[in-house]
Amino acid sequence: MTNPARRLHLNAFVMANGHHEAAWRHPDVRPTDALTLAHYVDIARTAERGRLDSIFFADNLALPRNVRFNGHSAFEPITLLSAIAAVTEHIGLIATASTTYNEPYLLARAFASLDHLSRGRAGWNIVTSAGQDEARNVNLAERPDHADRYARAAEFLDVATALWDSWADDAVVADQAAGIWADVDAIRSIDHEGEHFQVRGPLNIRRPVQGHPLLVQAGSSEAGKEFAARTAEAVFTAQQTLEDAQAFYRDLKGRLGGYGRSPEDLLVLPGISPVIGRTEQEARDREAELNSLINPQYGLAQLSAMLDTDLTDVPLDEPLPDVAPGTEGNQSRFDLVVGLARREDLTVRRLLERLAGGRGHRVVAGTPEQIADEIERWFTDGAADGFNVMPPTLPGSLDDFVDLVVPVLQRRGLFRTEYDGATLREHYGLARPTVRDRHPEKENAA
Amino acid sequence: MTNPARRLHLNAFVMANGHHEAAWRHPDVRPTDALTLAHYVDIARTAERGRLDSIFFADNLALPRNVRFNGHSAFEPITLLSAIAAVTEHIGLIATASTTYNEPYLLARAFASLDHLSRGRAGWNIVTSAGQDEARNVNLAERPDHADRYARAAEFLDVATALWDSWADDAVVADQAAGIWADVDAIRSIDHEGEHFQVRGPLNIRRPVQGHPLLVQAGSSEAGKEFAARTAEAVFTAQQTLEDAQAFYRDLKGRLGGYGRSPEDLLVLPGISPVIGRTEQEARDREAELNSLINPQYGLAQLSAMLDTDLTDVPLDEPLPDVAPGTEGNQSRFDLVVGLARREDLTVRRLLERLAGGRGHRVVAGTPEQIADEIERWFTDGAADGFNVMPPTLPGSLDDFVDLVVPVLQRRGLFRTEYDGATLREHYGLARPTVRDRHPEKENAA
Ligand SMILES: Cc1cc2nc3c(=O)[nH]c(=O)nc-3n(C[C@H](O)[C@H](O)[C@H](O)COP(=O)(O)O)c2cc1C
Ligand SMILES: Cc1cc2nc3c(=O)[nH]c(=O)nc-3n(C[C@H](O)[C@H](O)[C@H](O)COP(=O)(O)O)c2cc1C
Repeated sequence: MTNPARRLHLNAFVMANGHHEAAWRHPDVRPTDALTLAHYVDIARTAERGRLDSIFFADNLALPRNVRFNGHSAFEPITLLSAIAAVTEHIGLIATASTTYNEPYLLARAFASLDHLSRGRAGWNIVTSAGQDEARNVNLAERPDHADRYARAAEFLDVATALWDSWADDAVVADQAAGIWADVDAIRSIDHEGEHFQVRGPLNIRRPVQGHPLLVQAGSSEAGKEFAARTAEAVFTAQQTLEDAQAFYRDLKGRLGGYGRSPEDLLVLPGISPVIGRTEQEARDREAELNSLINPQYGLAQLSAMLDTDLTDVPLDEPLPDVAPGTEGNQSRFDLVVGLARREDLTVRRLLERLAGGRGHRVVAGTPEQIADEIERWFTDGAADGFNVMPPTLPGSLDDFVDLVVPVLQRRGLFRTEYDGATLREHYGLARPTVRDRHPEKENAA
Repeated sequence: MTNPARRLHLNAFVMANGHHEAAWRHPDVRPTDALTLAHYVDIARTAERGRLDSIFFADNLALPRNVRFNGHSAFEPITLLSAIAAVTEHIGLIATASTTYNEPYLLARAFASLDHLSRGRAGWNIVTSAGQDEARNVNLAERPDHADRYARAAEFLDVATALWDSWADDAVVADQAAGIWADVDAIRSIDHEGEHFQVRGPLNIRRPVQGHPLLVQAGSSEAGKEFAARTAEAVFTAQQTLEDAQAFYRDLKGRLGGYGRSPEDLLVLPGISPVIGRTEQEARDREAELNSLINPQYGLAQLSAMLDTDLTDVPLDEPLPDVAPGTEGNQSRFDLVVGLARREDLTVRRLLERLAGGRGHRVVAGTPEQIADEIERWFTDGAADGFNVMPPTLPGSLDDFVDLVVPVLQRRGLFRTEYDGATLREHYGLARPTVRDRHPEKENAA
């Protein structure tokens, strides 16, 4: 049995009609529902019914090149999650936002606003934007290079955290009789003068309910892992095998000490796309049905983006040609995809099928018990603190996960049956950051 | 009687605990309610109950200097209105955002997202950020000068509108059988190469429900009025007297022809802060009670910001000293405030009282009938197409306005008794912009 003190965490990664690339073509799916708020509210409520920790939206600052063949998440995540905040009670709300193409003052404020609107349920998936098209939408001819992106990200987080901490928690006094709204000694400018940013502060919104929103990260390059070890509290990752996942888990946890942090301060959440059937055969049939709807032209465009190389014309029934790992794109996804093709000696067509379910994330088809077994094994064997659950179709597969798999995990004592905290940090068992450094007299007074 | 075809429009300008600067100290007000989403949801629902056109939030990218003495709107407007969108049906949702300190791609997308979340209820109050402190939060030592701010605003709007129009309205086809999600011929890059911005596009979200969000503007300098005449569909303005308001109204409407537009294409909405009593005496008492809670130190800080001049140490019981009109700040508010002080020969203390109710906007204390009379007079006498209603306290004064003044306006046939449209543009009687220029073949096909 698992250590009862250690708790499994489950995040629902929400993507339009689902994570299988042909999800929108499945007969159970009404594709244009993904263009409505109601669809996402329904999903959020399902996640809440399943007592999941959080929902999460990816993001990208350019229209995907292959929109001809596939829908994409139509909404901007912070606005969408703000709307969802108003009609949910418990579920954590994690939005992706780029440090490469945003301003720290504006973004720190938007997350603080979401955190207050949701009474402490905001999370930020910090990305450095590996795509090629985003830069050209925001006045740049080229994306900054990989090292620069991470250097900017580090400084961005320094500024953002300083801004959140620019107000002590109790700065608002609202003393009607004395006419004093705020204790201005508890609100400090930050006077940041760095290489990428000059920001005076203070922030124009008081400290977030959670101190800082939950900080999530999803890069797996060397620079990405160092950034995560320094900054992140949860890490999303794509892992195909238990061994790779264990190695990644050990690697990342091992880096924390270098930043004065403990292994429990950062949770590792690999992706899992569960294809659920009442029987194993039903699950396999469902997977085959989805794969039968794949469009290889779309798959090749996706593969090209993942490998940062134009592969739109490669022959489908031959092995993946030699491709050189770039230094600028998503390095870990490159290694994962090429590794999978070589290890299993796949043709391009078979590789596209293997990627269709989760763009490189692990797909597990089986009964609820079998899926729970996989989750338990990775959780107990040092590969995961929880999972980034990627339903193949939406809303259907999330309903199935919540109605069929979650109860198994609950019966095994692995997963909560009720929320016992109010904030996203409390769901994840993470401490609320103090403002010791910036407001020393406040800490003494406490 | 008024022309029955001409309809009065009412926007609720929502500000924390209300527009009177001492609102938060009033015994009817629970000041920290303004830090919660519930407070604003309550207000939005009241506005909807009164069949108002819209609610509106101001914004500023720096903490007000005088936060010691007064609360400020704690939330970022686009996130706050996204949350409100999820729990309201009809009310228009107008957020302020700066063209000086945002990126067009990011902001155009956020407004498109809000417009879809609300099914066509988004509006954008376009501001150029006259304040001194904002620049230093976003990497600049000084705010750009007045002319530069408006030049950037004009280019910003060109980019934003091109991005909204980068998708034809029917670009999403979602043909499951054929596997075609979008008609990519109906989605165009914009390839903008300008002085301030280089933006390739297309936008990564389909065309807003309204085509473009409603475009609102609130600058009254020469450059501001030209910008409004070219771009805006509604203008907020502060006017103290009927004559000034009529002159402003004529001036602005007269500029529209120069841009190939008609007078009905732009609505002029002066501010009005209604202090409502069952009797005139009750209204005056209420105003006096609020004024008794004024803190002159706070008033002087506000006055300094409005006049872009440090006046924090001027004597209270003498006339306003000579102040030179700057060229960089809010020019129209300068003229209004100095004009008021000189015209009525006010001491600084009396001036502060006159400004406390609405920062230069008109305050009208009286019975519901008297307030309706004032509204009707300005509306019929060529001074206003509607009003920017600024409740002195919140939520109480908005309840009073909706319960007491709106029925009078409805009985007089001036104001709607039910919503007859679905979108904010429909409430305001404004046309939905076409995409003729960018997608000519679409327009022909229609
Ligand atoms: C589950 C998951 C979700 C991700 N979501 C996004 C996203 O929404 N937007 C984005 O730009 N990158 C996203 N990424 C990519 C990473 O954040 C990162 O940019 C990428 O892995 C390149 O960094 P690296 O070279 O350090 O791996 C995601 C990665 C994973 C594993
Ligand atoms: C009702 C009203 C609301 C305004 N709201 C804002 C605001 O939220 N943020 C802002 O920066 N300026 C705001 N302004 C100021 C104007 O948008 C504009 O920046 C200012 O008037 C200076 O421009 P001008 O010199 O053209 O008058 C507002 C003005 C009015 C009349």
